[in-house]
Amino acid sequence: MHRLRVGMAQMNATVGDFAGNTRKILDIISQARALEVDMLTFPELAICGYPPEDLLFKPKFIEENLRFLNKVIEASAGITLVVGFVDAKEDIYNAAAIVHDGKLVSAYHKIYLPNYGVFDEDRYFRAGASSECPVYTIAGVGIGINICEDIWYEAGPTSIQAYAGAEVIVNISASPFHYGKGNARERMLATRASDNVSVVVFNNLVGGQDELVFDGNSLILDEKGQVIARGKQFEEDLIIADLEIESVFRTRLHDPRWRKEKLLAEQRGGGIRVMVSEAPVSLTKPPLPARQVITKPLLGEVYDALVLGTRDYVRKNGFKKVLMGLSGGIDSSLVATIATDALGKDNVVGISMPSRYSSEGSVTDAELLSKNLGIKLKTIPIEEIFQAYLNTLMPQFEGKEPDVTEENIQARIRGNILMALSNKFGWLVLATGNKSEMATGFTTLYGDMAGGFSVIKDVPKTMGYELAKYRNSVAGYELIPSAIIGKAPSPELKPEQKTTDTLPPYPRLDPILMAYVEEDKSVEQIIAAGHDEATVRRAAQLVDRSEYKRRQAPPGVKITPRAFGRDRRLPITNRFKG
Amino acid sequence: MHRLRVGMAQMNATVGDFAGNTRKILDIISQARALEVDMLTFPELAICGYPPEDLLFKPKFIEENLRFLNKVIEASAGITLVVGFVDAKEDIYNAAAIVHDGKLVSAYHKIYLPNYGVFDEDRYFRAGASSECPVYTIAGVGIGINICEDIWYEAGPTSIQAYAGAEVIVNISASPFHYGKGNARERMLATRASDNVSVVVFNNLVGGQDELVFDGNSLILDEKGQVIARGKQFEEDLIIADLEIESVFRTRLHDPRWRKEKLLAEQRGGGIRVMVSEAPVSLTKPPLPARQVITKPLLGEVYDALVLGTRDYVRKNGFKKVLMGLSGGIDSSLVATIATDALGKDNVVGISMPSRYSSEGSVTDAELLSKNLGIKLKTIPIEEIFQAYLNTLMPQFEGKEPDVTEENIQARIRGNILMALSNKFGWLVLATGNKSEMATGFTTLYGDMAGGFSVIKDVPKTMGYELAKYRNSVAGYELIPSAIIGKAPSPELKPEQKTTDTLPPYPRLDPILMAYVEEDKSVEQIIAAGHDEATVRRAAQLVDRSEYKRRQAPPGVKITPRAFGRDRRLPITNRFKG
Repeated sequence: MHRLRVGMAQMNATVGDFAGNTRKILDIISQARALEVDMLTFPELAICGYPPEDLLFKPKFIEENLRFLNKVIEASAGITLVVGFVDAKEDIYNAAAIVHDGKLVSAYHKIYLPNYGVFDEDRYFRAGASSECPVYTIAGVGIGINICEDIWYEAGPTSIQAYAGAEVIVNISASPFHYGKGNARERMLATRASDNVSVVVFNNLVGGQDELVFDGNSLILDEKGQVIARGKQFEEDLIIADLEIESVFRTRLHDPRWRKEKLLAEQRGGGIRVMVSEAPVSLTKPPLPARQVITKPLLGEVYDALVLGTRDYVRKNGFKKVLMGLSGGIDSSLVATIATDALGKDNVVGISMPSRYSSEGSVTDAELLSKNLGIKLKTIPIEEIFQAYLNTLMPQFEGKEPDVTEENIQARIRGNILMALSNKFGWLVLATGNKSEMATGFTTLYGDMAGGFSVIKDVPKTMGYELAKYRNSVAGYELIPSAIIGKAPSPELKPEQKTTDTLPPYPRLDPILMAYVEEDKSVEQIIAAGHDEATVRRAAQLVDRSEYKRRQAPPGVKITPRAFGRDRRLPITNRFKG
Repeated sequence: MHRLRVGMAQMNATVGDFAGNTRKILDIISQARALEVDMLTFPELAICGYPPEDLLFKPKFIEENLRFLNKVIEASAGITLVVGFVDAKEDIYNAAAIVHDGKLVSAYHKIYLPNYGVFDEDRYFRAGASSECPVYTIAGVGIGINICEDIWYEAGPTSIQAYAGAEVIVNISASPFHYGKGNARERMLATRASDNVSVVVFNNLVGGQDELVFDGNSLILDEKGQVIARGKQFEEDLIIADLEIESVFRTRLHDPRWRKEKLLAEQRGGGIRVMVSEAPVSLTKPPLPARQVITKPLLGEVYDALVLGTRDYVRKNGFKKVLMGLSGGIDSSLVATIATDALGKDNVVGISMPSRYSSEGSVTDAELLSKNLGIKLKTIPIEEIFQAYLNTLMPQFEGKEPDVTEENIQARIRGNILMALSNKFGWLVLATGNKSEMATGFTTLYGDMAGGFSVIKDVPKTMGYELAKYRNSVAGYELIPSAIIGKAPSPELKPEQKTTDTLPPYPRLDPILMAYVEEDKSVEQIIAAGHDEATVRRAAQLVDRSEYKRRQAPPGVKITPRAFGRDRRLPITNRFKG
């Protein structure tokens, strides 16, 4: 009797694309109806995409969102839907529409608005009231619905709804990726399910949106906290499962803690019960095929996040092809490989821009990589242009020794050439700097930092090497040539230059940068943890001094718990020494 | 008997400069003590500077702030101080320390945390409780203290404190400037003072911090809402006034509304009365000299905001000299003039970078301006470099017509030259683009957008002309030559180019941009307001398409109610058509 067929639409929405998102939603409704799904869920703000940021201040944006919600409602004959949208009353709410058989039954308003890290929801939304946590009955099964952050709180709407009679908790989310997040989220959801003796249906968004990647990885967990269905990582998916509610009933019946707390919750006024559908679910449905989705290892999920983030940025912004400088170094090689995986080899163009300081190996390594990837490589030497700059600036620079100026001029010539090709052919420039460089400022503003998207800006240098090796292991051969992975890093902007002339070796530097940037440790704490004092002081100073560069950096994929960007908002004008 | 000498320290704090800010505070305490001030106030977060942004996540930052507060407490012998700092209990608070005679008497926690526009205070602080609005008694006078946003709410701490017996309301602020804000603030404060029959002491911060300028303009208003003392605009100031409290007593005594509401407030639990000093104020103090500060007209305050914002960005970031490209156009001429007013003529270097497309007038106009300003002008023709790019790219561009690519190459050559001079000599590059260009993307990323600070990025083109004329009227002659103000705008990047080839004339364009960008009007609404349909659609499309450029723009001074930057946070990936 108490069996419910649930569908989770792990869809890739695009911010502001009401027509496109709604077309997708209607198409999934048709698929789900054919599969006799009783309740079909969609991610948080599926109608308008997430995060819409200050578009939410535009009244027309809110109106369009309501207009397209109505199209979804009209298409809901014979099915129950849970769809994320922006509700507009005396203020706006991050909301879930509960739609049944052509009617909007109710709207749930998100109670816990995240306002930390990459989130700014207090800027936009009014919070829902915890006195408004209705429970819906669908085919005899109690359903509690809440949104993303709501389920991260132990004493939040999830328990109110469960204690008020919801056997199934539906959480629609737009939970962004960073490495390890999927595991943490799964542990939290398992705890929530078993603590509340509830089936948890967690429907996450998938796709890239500027700096964020939503990893999908939607889950259904039974009342013991065991995963019974799992959506793909980094891909759209429609996950369908038959929920058995009998064991929820049985467990709750023998749980004295449960019954007392349920009472308490009812006294709190939570859990208004709203009937959605009285008809029992048909028992004649064909069984669903077994499905198995395996979660990826850490490097695998990071790599796939970079691929999806790049693909979605490029395509959702209307570009087809990309180009990037190919120096023969690890960073640009990794970016070219990610871009090729994201967009296909015909849509990636590498540009080799040798100078008087480029080693022979740099050029031949870039050639071998391009051959392996099957991408086009163009060679554009910068010597004539560089010489013209030196001639032009000679009267100004008289009596001055060559210094970092001449290095930056070369990097900016390359930036200008890449942008010129971009302007002429309509290709998007991918910047190739890594997080260690972004942190220390060991990069040239308007030079190697130039571009529309900075693919690996959140990847520490040492992780870049690991990702290259990971990708080679998947390929089963040296897709990224070992000469590239093995060589000592050098910007090749002056004779015999090595990165270690200026910076400590990356394996020593990266843990210091992580402690200082991601963990807010002080210089003193990092030294006390056993790192070399001079190195720590120099690293912290470099980070502090480079804020102005980061402020002008293109966006890139967030893969760490704290990325540069909206995640970390530091003043440029700042005399504090951390 | 009831007379209180109050000092307001309208100081220019620097974010993170604990030592420097504290040195300033101690120095002002000495001055105030010599002037027999009873109560001396400082701006919001005076100890650490405002806004500290994510520095607040660093435990060491919070500790340093407390350590330096202690130095201020130690220096408070014989005086009462109100000082902004970060209080750390189970969470952190935006707080005011009430310090008296060597002791911390109490700390008030800001209740209303702004989380809109440029503000993100919910990200950092816990809000104070309205049950904790103590009233302090200093020399028999009741004082209520609150912080910035708190006083903008009619039913906020101001009335709680007034009804609980405060005759004087001290509000310490860091209220950023935009044009017209000063007047709005003054009207609000006058209403608050007369509504609550209280003297209002409004102590604002002054100075530039990245994109924000705090305009000072501190005020003391009597219980009728009349201004009795006014701090300077855009300058540090120590404002001292003797407050007569007798008329507050008299007015309240005959105000039946007052007495009832006072009772209500006391029932609400607001207004804990804390004794700070029992000693009556000496009546032998010498009278204060009369002071008169005149508020500036709109163009004057905008101009001064640009000067202060530029000066503070340059100096607080450790630079002495600046340079900028001088094209002979209105924008770069205005920026050079502002920079000269901000930093002095010896610290400004103009660079003329003529190309094959530059008109003779451009070069001579830049020369005349430089002569008028007394700044150095260097001429660096870009022809040889431009030709080298064309030669180098010829094989790539074969069969393609010249287009915007070749224009951008020239702009980026100029960007590279300016940055090279910056690198070689340690001068900061000022970018010269205006808000109309930033809005429409009529500017070259890494070209004319290159620089450390973008002085007029929030100034619409049409206002730029007005500012130039305003500055000339102050000078009493054509400091900015009329040839510059009078010529038709042109980027001079191809033969016979006029800006109107590509954009509608600015007087038609600017009101559309303001409606679309600052007022969130839809295209349909702007057309309905009487603007030409094709122009509106084109303008909106240009704004939408240029988000990626703005994301990589340097910071600049906010002067409008909504500036590009932290004030307006739009996704780049966005298919919404406004």
